[in-house]
Amino acid sequence: MSVPRPLPAGFVEALLEQGVSHVSTDPVELAAVAVDRSGIVPEGPPGVLVRAAGVDDVQSALWLASEFEVPVVPRGGGSGVAGAAVAGPGSLVLDLSGLNRILEVDPVDQIAVVEPGVITAHLEAAAGRVGLRYAPDPASAAISTIGGNVATNAGGLRCVKYGVTRDAVLGLDVVLADGTLISTGRQTLKGVAGLDLTGLFVGSEGTLGVVVGATLRLRPLPLETLTVAAAYPDVESAARACAAVAAARREPSMLELLDARTLGVVDAVQGTSYAERGGALVIAQADGASAGSEIAAIAEVLGKEATWIEQGLDDASSARLVEARRLALPSIETLGSVLIEDICVPRSRLAEAFRRVAEIGDRHGVRIYSFAHAGDGNLHPLIGYEPGPVPDAVVAAGDDLFALALELGGTVSGEHGIGLLKREWLHREIGPEALSVHQSIKTALDPLGILNPGKGY
Amino acid sequence: MSVPRPLPAGFVEALLEQGVSHVSTDPVELAAVAVDRSGIVPEGPPGVLVRAAGVDDVQSALWLASEFEVPVVPRGGGSGVAGAAVAGPGSLVLDLSGLNRILEVDPVDQIAVVEPGVITAHLEAAAGRVGLRYAPDPASAAISTIGGNVATNAGGLRCVKYGVTRDAVLGLDVVLADGTLISTGRQTLKGVAGLDLTGLFVGSEGTLGVVVGATLRLRPLPLETLTVAAAYPDVESAARACAAVAAARREPSMLELLDARTLGVVDAVQGTSYAERGGALVIAQADGASAGSEIAAIAEVLGKEATWIEQGLDDASSARLVEARRLALPSIETLGSVLIEDICVPRSRLAEAFRRVAEIGDRHGVRIYSFAHAGDGNLHPLIGYEPGPVPDAVVAAGDDLFALALELGGTVSGEHGIGLLKREWLHREIGPEALSVHQSIKTALDPLGILNPGKGY
Repeated sequence: MSVPRPLPAGFVEALLEQGVSHVSTDPVELAAVAVDRSGIVPEGPPGVLVRAAGVDDVQSALWLASEFEVPVVPRGGGSGVAGAAVAGPGSLVLDLSGLNRILEVDPVDQIAVVEPGVITAHLEAAAGRVGLRYAPDPASAAISTIGGNVATNAGGLRCVKYGVTRDAVLGLDVVLADGTLISTGRQTLKGVAGLDLTGLFVGSEGTLGVVVGATLRLRPLPLETLTVAAAYPDVESAARACAAVAAARREPSMLELLDARTLGVVDAVQGTSYAERGGALVIAQADGASAGSEIAAIAEVLGKEATWIEQGLDDASSARLVEARRLALPSIETLGSVLIEDICVPRSRLAEAFRRVAEIGDRHGVRIYSFAHAGDGNLHPLIGYEPGPVPDAVVAAGDDLFALALELGGTVSGEHGIGLLKREWLHREIGPEALSVHQSIKTALDPLGILNPGKGY
Repeated sequence: MSVPRPLPAGFVEALLEQGVSHVSTDPVELAAVAVDRSGIVPEGPPGVLVRAAGVDDVQSALWLASEFEVPVVPRGGGSGVAGAAVAGPGSLVLDLSGLNRILEVDPVDQIAVVEPGVITAHLEAAAGRVGLRYAPDPASAAISTIGGNVATNAGGLRCVKYGVTRDAVLGLDVVLADGTLISTGRQTLKGVAGLDLTGLFVGSEGTLGVVVGATLRLRPLPLETLTVAAAYPDVESAARACAAVAAARREPSMLELLDARTLGVVDAVQGTSYAERGGALVIAQADGASAGSEIAAIAEVLGKEATWIEQGLDDASSARLVEARRLALPSIETLGSVLIEDICVPRSRLAEAFRRVAEIGDRHGVRIYSFAHAGDGNLHPLIGYEPGPVPDAVVAAGDDLFALALELGGTVSGEHGIGLLKREWLHREIGPEALSVHQSIKTALDPLGILNPGKGY
């Protein structure tokens, strides 16, 4: 975090004079917008909050922030887990959650035009009413906003078939650091006019501009979604089975893996008995017109080394099987604090990754719960600890997880972002030359460095 | 084009002293690498050619080009149609076609690691040997290189289901203007570590760096591909039928539309009789495990207003139906010169776009052949003219096509790129503020402006 400093004199007054909506310095409001779900606590509360009621508020706030050189922390649902929305002393929190209108859902062009504060699940519901869906499904869909999804390039369970947020964004409206509004991308499904500014803003964690609108690609709601779950003696055999699904060229719409410790907690909290069936569980789905043949083929591959296998033959039994995965994080969170990790490795290294993650836990004497979007090679090791400050052993184990990801040819973030949490590891991953390119682009777009400074890279 | 100027004294000698491979100033070799397939002729030949035999050649050439401030025109297969590879006086042509090794094809991770000079069709063949495929299929796949595909973000017929080049690129090795080598992206299917530099380089037409390696995503080769063709009274009813396929939430792997004038030429050259069946032809494919049910549903939608419909029940009859589309451009090219256009509109505006394209042809008294990747709203109006300089009426009709694209909420390039051909129209499409962001990024990455100057934006 930056060294504590007050807001420049006259800044709040200038916001008010400019007619910016909902300018607040109320300590209770400021405390509520200072943190996200990363567990990172800033050195003190931010200086001022603006709850934008329109694009003009965002433009005015950024123009004035440039004039006064005030750091700006854009904010959506506050559901990020890497600290990108953590706001320290002297900063302006720009809350976009009030810009929450779904402006258009077009069933022929299969696009949606939305404001950034739209809750991800609300968009999915609106798309569903015309037989479409917004494919990216971050676990936080019920509370995260589209703007936050764009800022972090959020993933989810369906990414293995449908791609991540970036793949669903056709165009953006962005307010730049000096208050200039630009549009990027297009309303069409294809287009190569100019540099891919849309892709550059997606995943940039509020460091290059503030997203005030998005044109999103929707996809047909699948006619059918079928599920199979299989248990294995251990996590390595389960990971090998997941790799075999890919090697057999099957195309699951979901392929998740849970380790024994996670199953134990899910069972304890939910009253299920998955842990009795094996030392690891794989849950796969297939969807669309080919769901039947696809799930049968996937079940055949998964069944080879499984100690138990069950197909969800209707929506209710499918939902019950998926419940184990959906409830994994909330179940573990009932036991205390967790550091949620997010590494991604080549699919072929998944079994090795699981084995090494367990070794890291043993070495540091910490409890690691592991589950994974196995189809993408994206592991979420969760390190549990007693509520309070993060113990040194947890931090050390986290560092070993990042080192492991890089050793296996992977990345330190599959879908959660870098924020404040992983900057040092990002630098190790990309190297000084690529980091220098990042910094050149940052300087080109935000010469005063007011946009979410200290985050992302 | 830039004003003719000679190479700086000592530049060629410096390349030779540095040990750069195949440095040539032979007029025959220079003439052969001065143009692409855009029809644009530079004011004179380039100054020098380097045929890179390794990444070190690219690094040395760029480092020296920076030292001497020599413009560099990177080049792959020379199959571009927008002029991005046209090289004028005083420039260095950097030919990457010799870097043509497929370094890795991994069936579990489903990735390929390739050098930029690999011919697109060669990669598809290599992937096919392990049951995979490289999804983007530009019409020029037999002659285009992966590096060129990346530079232009090339599309193709399968994009409607599988996305464009950008969607298939996981990571790049790029040599920057000063000769620095960086790696972008990752080897994993997901990853959000840092800015999306990969996406920024894809489609940048050699203006930000020179791609010397690519990690590409492969996909399973579909088990089955089925085809249906349908004829319509006119192009507008055919376009409405294509929009209806999308509105019915079907997912064709190909959805192409050909107008009457195109059918007439295909028939004349190929001996077929499509023009007898209607005033426009739609060809659709569905692939994968759901191909059977999908093609039946698509055929039902297409059949409603069709004057004729035929399903390809086996590979041979499918191939015959698709032949009409594959041979459209070569057939038209037998008649004389053509200006190949490439606009993209929202799918819902496709019928209107076809009607208006025909009106533009009538207004300017030029022959326009229209076919389209209808599933994406991507039209290729071809304006025919007698061999020789491009007539004013053809240029004027082209301008009207661009204006039409923008009026209908579309873009001036769906998949061919901007190059030299469409810069003015790009500026109109994106506006001065977004253009200024392009220029800031260009300056950040290429401060001396040596990389393909005058192209792209």
